[in-house]
Amino acid sequence: MSTDTNTAIHVAIVGGGITGVILALGLEKRGVSYTLFERAPAFTEIGAGIGFSPNAERALKVVDPKVHELYKKVTTSTGEEEFFTWVNGNENNEIIASLPIGVDAFQGGRRSEFLEAWSTLIPSAKVKFSKEIESLLQKDDGKVTLKFKDGSLDEADIVIGCDGIRSRVRQLTLGEANPASYPRYSKKFCFRALLPMGKAREVLGEARTLSRFMYTGLDAHAITYPVAGGALLNVLFVVTDVNPWLLERHTAPGTRGEVVDLFSGWHSSIRGLVDLLPEKLDKWAIFDMYDYPAPYYNLGSVALAGDAAHASGPHLGSGAGFGIEDGLVLATVLKAADEEVEARQSGKNKTQICRDALAAYNTVRYDRDQWLPGATRESVELFHWRHKEVGSKDHEKFLERAHHLFHTIWDNDIDEMVKTAALEFKDVVFKQSQPSLYGSRISQ
Amino acid sequence: MSTDTNTAIHVAIVGGGITGVILALGLEKRGVSYTLFERAPAFTEIGAGIGFSPNAERALKVVDPKVHELYKKVTTSTGEEEFFTWVNGNENNEIIASLPIGVDAFQGGRRSEFLEAWSTLIPSAKVKFSKEIESLLQKDDGKVTLKFKDGSLDEADIVIGCDGIRSRVRQLTLGEANPASYPRYSKKFCFRALLPMGKAREVLGEARTLSRFMYTGLDAHAITYPVAGGALLNVLFVVTDVNPWLLERHTAPGTRGEVVDLFSGWHSSIRGLVDLLPEKLDKWAIFDMYDYPAPYYNLGSVALAGDAAHASGPHLGSGAGFGIEDGLVLATVLKAADEEVEARQSGKNKTQICRDALAAYNTVRYDRDQWLPGATRESVELFHWRHKEVGSKDHEKFLERAHHLFHTIWDNDIDEMVKTAALEFKDVVFKQSQPSLYGSRISQ
Repeated sequence: MSTDTNTAIHVAIVGGGITGVILALGLEKRGVSYTLFERAPAFTEIGAGIGFSPNAERALKVVDPKVHELYKKVTTSTGEEEFFTWVNGNENNEIIASLPIGVDAFQGGRRSEFLEAWSTLIPSAKVKFSKEIESLLQKDDGKVTLKFKDGSLDEADIVIGCDGIRSRVRQLTLGEANPASYPRYSKKFCFRALLPMGKAREVLGEARTLSRFMYTGLDAHAITYPVAGGALLNVLFVVTDVNPWLLERHTAPGTRGEVVDLFSGWHSSIRGLVDLLPEKLDKWAIFDMYDYPAPYYNLGSVALAGDAAHASGPHLGSGAGFGIEDGLVLATVLKAADEEVEARQSGKNKTQICRDALAAYNTVRYDRDQWLPGATRESVELFHWRHKEVGSKDHEKFLERAHHLFHTIWDNDIDEMVKTAALEFKDVVFKQSQPSLYGSRISQ
Repeated sequence: MSTDTNTAIHVAIVGGGITGVILALGLEKRGVSYTLFERAPAFTEIGAGIGFSPNAERALKVVDPKVHELYKKVTTSTGEEEFFTWVNGNENNEIIASLPIGVDAFQGGRRSEFLEAWSTLIPSAKVKFSKEIESLLQKDDGKVTLKFKDGSLDEADIVIGCDGIRSRVRQLTLGEANPASYPRYSKKFCFRALLPMGKAREVLGEARTLSRFMYTGLDAHAITYPVAGGALLNVLFVVTDVNPWLLERHTAPGTRGEVVDLFSGWHSSIRGLVDLLPEKLDKWAIFDMYDYPAPYYNLGSVALAGDAAHASGPHLGSGAGFGIEDGLVLATVLKAADEEVEARQSGKNKTQICRDALAAYNTVRYDRDQWLPGATRESVELFHWRHKEVGSKDHEKFLERAHHLFHTIWDNDIDEMVKTAALEFKDVVFKQSQPSLYGSRISQ
């Protein structure tokens, strides 16, 4: 169908968050042509902080060793084994379970720090800021026209929607009338604050302020970890809500009084921590795509990645990792597609090759990605003592289940995934049939 | 999910063409609450003429005997057996094949005549004119919000998109970035004219002007039939195009000269007919949904019907019939859903019952409806002597294939279809599982 069959593939990346930037870096490293469109005027800070799970870190190396080097520059090596440690914060402040992550593992920081460091590897001509996508049209010549809110137009062979939990590309792909086009309230909300370390240490004792602790309890949990070189303690209170979230925005003003009420029955350590909160603080509703999953991530020459595809709560610390894995698989299949457009061994035209690449991406990623929103919801049930099989008292079962959830995320074999992606693309592209417009989930 | 679980179902019908009006009449007869929204300020004439195949006529009776009575009032009974008769218009003007349809069968007229007659059965409070749909939102309380271009809002439990070949509801349901949201050029275009009967008779001879004839030939065919009580001969020239259709509109100005050139090698009868054409006449591109079919017609509480679901070329005269069948099945399952909302034997809530009804509609209609665009394209290949198995010379095979295509349309057992629809709804609603958002074509 393409009238422009002999030139290399050009990819439009919509959204410059972690997923979009990683995809750009992967394409940059592999010599595939792309433009990154970001709504904001710069790689700004959105979201409080971000952590990189072991699978995320391994994937960064495969995207480009330089990307991993920059990651290590932003974070501070301690040379020590890191743990997730859970405490019974409701009753006795005693440790329930501890899960080793690895040496220097799960390091984090501010999202903007990483984006700014990584963006030094992206030629500025390949990034267009202040571009908010309005519509997409897949034309019969195989090109996709992008129309932005400012009225400007652009064109690409492939469009990847990395535009986050409120993705416009998702709406355009699944339909505006589709309930799956919009995230839903997971019935959990958070309060977050940065506390002065001195006072936090008085309340918790020094040992509890040196690394990450999770205080579990009935219908709520709290997470604490040191930031800013140990000068501040980052605290997050996650609460099960019984009410719907009625606001259009996912954040709302909250008060210390609310948190005091919610944790009034908890152990004095947690109550002491709550007393350190500022009078006014933001309340943050956790939305996700669990209720209405996307039936597929690819639609012809358009695909969804990262939160736009499978937004999940932050409770497993997995969002960045899954977005990076998506970006790496996309970079892999798009590189293979670019080579096939050059070599033309399959006899297919450029449009078909592009669609095949995204179908391969969908096949490789769909099941793992779709698992995440539900697994994340399950983890909160676990931390809130509402897990169907674990309940509140069995610490062994608690650790067993937490181990399963986290290790399903962390243990992904990145090299194997990349190999599978390349093979899957070959498999699809050498099938003689016309590729389906949709992912493999549609049986037609 | 619905907060409004005890009131009867209210249906919003988007589009007041044949399908939308028939659905309204079916709901009116069955006492199901509805509002019909039409973009135009009245039931205006769109499309030249319309014919009702035997299945369409039988379905009209089941929708409401009064609807069939009005249909008979608009048309004129001849009491004679009707035929489709094909002529070799290219070479010798001789009859190739003839297919009996039935006594008084396949009567037609102007689309607006039927709509105006039928609309007398629809209370005016249930029709809102000058309402062009802009967006739909399926809310978590089960209601669907309709937003119109004039900024006004409305609400319903169910929305049926009967808004034709350029359906906005289809875009909202399948996604604006989905190639399947837009019809494609079938590479056939038409010229249509009304000729004074006296002159037409001089060219064709009287026998050929008394009923319907189709003049077949290489890469083109012509259809002629008397209208306006025999005062005029309606002629339609259908041509295979080698070029793409580059205009946004599906019509373009044409000239007699073009038709003269296209039919220059044909028999003198056809050339004589062409000479009677006015100097300037409209060219009409045939678009359809063959290239990119909808993967499903239902999405939660929204569904597509008629051309919005499966627009096909006019060559089998089947569009009205399939739209009427869709409307009848919808009226059947929505009546059953309305009763189930009252009886609540399944234990499901209103939203689930509504979704189940549309899932049942999809199951009953999808395969038959999806067959039509391809069958219609095949029929043109047949008439244009390009059919793979039939070619140009085998009149027996020609009739065999034409018989198969037309009788697949005409022989549909309407009573059985209605029975199946009611059973399918019961089947779905009494399944204890949460219904899928999508049609049965999606395997998730």
